[in-house]
Amino acid sequence: MFSIFLPRDVNFSELFEKQANYAVDAASYFKELVSKGTLDEASYQKMHDIEHQGDDVAHAIFDHLNKTFITPFDREDIHALAKRLDDVVDMIYTIVNRLKVYKLTSIHKNLIEFASVIEESTRAVAHAVKGLGNMKNAKKIFEYCVEINRLENVGDSMRDAMLADLFETEKDPISVMKWKEIYQDAETVLDICEDVAHVVQSILVKQA
Amino acid sequence: MFSIFLPRDVNFSELFEKQANYAVDAASYFKELVSKGTLDEASYQKMHDIEHQGDDVAHAIFDHLNKTFITPFDREDIHALAKRLDDVVDMIYTIVNRLKVYKLTSIHKNLIEFASVIEESTRAVAHAVKGLGNMKNAKKIFEYCVEINRLENVGDSMRDAMLADLFETEKDPISVMKWKEIYQDAETVLDICEDVAHVVQSILVKQA
Amino acid sequence: MFSIFLPRDVNFSELFEKQANYAVDAASYFKELVSKGTLDEASYQKMHDIEHQGDDVAHAIFDHLNKTFITPFDREDIHALAKRLDDVVDMIYTIVNRLKVYKLTSIHKNLIEFASVIEESTRAVAHAVKGLGNMKNAKKIFEYCVEINRLENVGDSMRDAMLADLFETEKDPISVMKWKEIYQDAETVLDICEDVAHVVQSILVKQA
Repeated sequence: MFSIFLPRDVNFSELFEKQANYAVDAASYFKELVSKGTLDEASYQKMHDIEHQGDDVAHAIFDHLNKTFITPFDREDIHALAKRLDDVVDMIYTIVNRLKVYKLTSIHKNLIEFASVIEESTRAVAHAVKGLGNMKNAKKIFEYCVEINRLENVGDSMRDAMLADLFETEKDPISVMKWKEIYQDAETVLDICEDVAHVVQSILVKQA
Repeated sequence: MFSIFLPRDVNFSELFEKQANYAVDAASYFKELVSKGTLDEASYQKMHDIEHQGDDVAHAIFDHLNKTFITPFDREDIHALAKRLDDVVDMIYTIVNRLKVYKLTSIHKNLIEFASVIEESTRAVAHAVKGLGNMKNAKKIFEYCVEINRLENVGDSMRDAMLADLFETEKDPISVMKWKEIYQDAETVLDICEDVAHVVQSILVKQA
Repeated sequence: MFSIFLPRDVNFSELFEKQANYAVDAASYFKELVSKGTLDEASYQKMHDIEHQGDDVAHAIFDHLNKTFITPFDREDIHALAKRLDDVVDMIYTIVNRLKVYKLTSIHKNLIEFASVIEESTRAVAHAVKGLGNMKNAKKIFEYCVEINRLENVGDSMRDAMLADLFETEKDPISVMKWKEIYQDAETVLDICEDVAHVVQSILVKQA
């Protein structure tokens, strides 16, 4: 079953696993970075490197996809999965880049809490994606998808609470502007993880 | 003609009709709520419920789509239609959620005007979507699509006028920030209605 | 080779060429307009006209696509190419519309620099798109795509530098709000050009 997913000339399974690992790497490093409370050039550079490496894998998948006639599942699902996994890493990098450009060198503690949820979600994403190679995992994969959806709801509430708090306590409009964007971006990472879960579920349902 | 659209095991037509009704419900309730001029917890909760119910129908469509081999029209059109109808309700809910989080308990009169146009547009969307089951309706459906496009242009002008007015009259930068986002979101609802119209037109043209 | 791309009843090649020319027109006119340093009603109107004309071509492509059974390349690639080329023009128009609505009649010199990069990128886009009719151009088209990607990276750095500078020098929060959005939009134009390049590359790879 699903043997077509296994190596022939192109091993999509392995590439997706790599991509998912970069998502977890980006999230873990993001959590580490915001926990330190300051952003230095070396930390920024490391995040930039992860983003570049993730990009390379995504492009490898797109290239293989365009050149491969028979694919393990629907072409559009492969494309969507690779695109959305790449978006996870990109969005985390975007937040770090904003911290740098906006000179937010002293990081709100709030963001640590958010970074933990993001890390949890990327770990669930990685489990779900890595399970795709074997339909025996279907039940577990669905459970990871439910967990990703749950974390997205948690993120919605966190963002709303942080925005309400920000508008209440921060009186400098320019700081409000900067942190508002950061919190909304952080929630967007969880939205994108949910998009990945949707693609994964759609792949599973088609094969049921 | 189009009999495949009618019940067999899955009735997409009925599900789309439900979705379109939730879009109208969300828009009507949004208008009612902004007309009252204040937002209380019960009103927020009711909008949240509509959004959840709409979500359930969207997921039912996605599930059926993944499990159904023969579909009444192109799979990607069914997917796009369900996704965009869901986005309409989500976006209306997003505005109400922002009003709550930003503590905008006293609502600008401007928004009532916008809510009326949004309601009109969702009604045209519902007519267009419900007509899809029978090709005899093609001419009327096209007219609804033209109307949806017209209302999107009306919305563009309304948003521009409201933003110009906001920047002219509101001197508190944080209030500007909040209302700017609300007006842009309101216009986005009309953009999404136009996206629905595009999918509907693409379905019609393929069947002509 | 690729003769199916040439006229039969529908000439997609010609329509894409038109669309690409409107993208270049919009970008050139945008550069001219920001170089003048002020925005008058006539300039705004001219940009609005270009946007409308681009829209008409996009709709012609969508209509033909829906009515055509055999297409020169994958239907989804044709749709994506037309959609993204349309988005380029729309986004440039959006910036000009914001300048008007926000009454930014005196334009930051920074934006001229950005407008030059945008113009360069649309020219590369036009070359890449026009080359698609003949596979002998494949190598050159790939070079244009590399150039479009390079310009997107240039744009990222420009936007970051301009935002950092804005937050450092502009003390009026409402001005910060307006110009921040303009700079982010300007970079978005280059992102969309990169999306066009991705579609073009995907078409090429499939035909290799």
